[in-house]
Amino acid sequence: MPRYALKVEYNGAPFSGWQRQSEHPSVQGAIEAALGKLEKRAHTIAAAGRTDAGVHGLGQVAHCDMEKEWDAFRLSEALNYHLKPEPVAITACARVDDAFHARFSATWRRYLFRLVCRRAPLTHEAGLAWRVPHMLDPVAMQAGADRLIGRHDFTTFRSSICQADSALRTLDRLDVEPVERPDGLEIRFHVQARSFLHNQVRSFVGTLERVGAGAWTPDDVTAALEARDRAACGPVCPPHGLYLAAVGYAPDPFDHI
Amino acid sequence: MPRYALKVEYNGAPFSGWQRQSEHPSVQGAIEAALGKLEKRAHTIAAAGRTDAGVHGLGQVAHCDMEKEWDAFRLSEALNYHLKPEPVAITACARVDDAFHARFSATWRRYLFRLVCRRAPLTHEAGLAWRVPHMLDPVAMQAGADRLIGRHDFTTFRSSICQADSALRTLDRLDVEPVERPDGLEIRFHVQARSFLHNQVRSFVGTLERVGAGAWTPDDVTAALEARDRAACGPVCPPHGLYLAAVGYAPDPFDHI
Repeated sequence: MPRYALKVEYNGAPFSGWQRQSEHPSVQGAIEAALGKLEKRAHTIAAAGRTDAGVHGLGQVAHCDMEKEWDAFRLSEALNYHLKPEPVAITACARVDDAFHARFSATWRRYLFRLVCRRAPLTHEAGLAWRVPHMLDPVAMQAGADRLIGRHDFTTFRSSICQADSALRTLDRLDVEPVERPDGLEIRFHVQARSFLHNQVRSFVGTLERVGAGAWTPDDVTAALEARDRAACGPVCPPHGLYLAAVGYAPDPFDHI
Repeated sequence: MPRYALKVEYNGAPFSGWQRQSEHPSVQGAIEAALGKLEKRAHTIAAAGRTDAGVHGLGQVAHCDMEKEWDAFRLSEALNYHLKPEPVAITACARVDDAFHARFSATWRRYLFRLVCRRAPLTHEAGLAWRVPHMLDPVAMQAGADRLIGRHDFTTFRSSICQADSALRTLDRLDVEPVERPDGLEIRFHVQARSFLHNQVRSFVGTLERVGAGAWTPDDVTAALEARDRAACGPVCPPHGLYLAAVGYAPDPFDHI
């Protein structure tokens, strides 16, 4: 069966997460239902990252197998037509060979986390960023973030329900980018690794928020990491500032489109 | 009674517009209801611009009269508390004297219109920008926009239900700003005048979209303006890319906070 890679953007707010569940709306379920309008049968798609409830997609990647040969652009247009009015869009589509697997072929994942420091509640960005009602110091946060780069046992920074066999991971990038705005300061975290543990990014951001507020020092971050103890983690931040931003493949299936 | 100027940000999607209506939710009604939690009586507030259904506020300004003296910051915090979970936020509040009137003291209004050129439907920005599924030429659009600057009879560019006595207005600014994005091209229109006619900005943007698509020339814009005929206008674009961005006062009541 011809296989297609799909780049997927979604607002996670109305969904219980990426993964299909019988009782709750999911992003996977929405895309599989749209595929069912094109080829009437049950469809099962796989994704690079199974995002949690409230987490968004910017450059999530999934793959699907079709019975007939589709023109890739036409397939994306037909899916977008049937996805309406769900806040899910196929932003790119490419024909790939059977060896491509959205999850197992991925060589890195990058997440974006958006935090906004301002007093007033968010309106246009409600559900799209984490609002913190006090000022934060992005320089201190970057100093704390630097303590987490590299290969470590990240037991402190993973959820107690994380199912990975090992907490050993290599964190390639954790950049704290301050963005000045008329209404306050936005802080964007760019976090990249081959793979992540459950709640790892939200555990990082919640801990670094404490550093930015002056409650923790960068040394406290090192101590938490070395404790290898979930109880040593700072507060886990809410999901709605988190985006699966990009997934890396070699070669990139979307390179030629 | 002590008077306060309020800077107001809102997502217009769930509202029938700024203006209070007995049967439909409105931004004015939401703020007056929050004021009623602070001082239990009927409240009536006035705003610089009465935005239509689906139109957003970034820097809308309103004023309210209170019975007791409020600390301005505490008043904004109390209003934000009672506005939850509506997507309306008071982003600044200042004590002003009785001569200040949000509508009649305003010396200029500035609108922002967000248009995004891309094939796929919008997800995170659904309802917050107008998506156009083809490419546009922002240089041609600016050339068309330049034909509208200055003092003119804008009969062509106002709604047939516009209640203003005269269609004579002075357009001070109509900037077409292209913003490159990974997913396409965003075009931001910055439009400023002392005051506007009904649907004037949406009539401008809908007409300039035709110029950007190559269907109209800048000379066609001049001919439409000179026709002084509503039928000569290009298509009026949808409301959901439009934001009341800022309102000017001399002196600015929010200057000292």
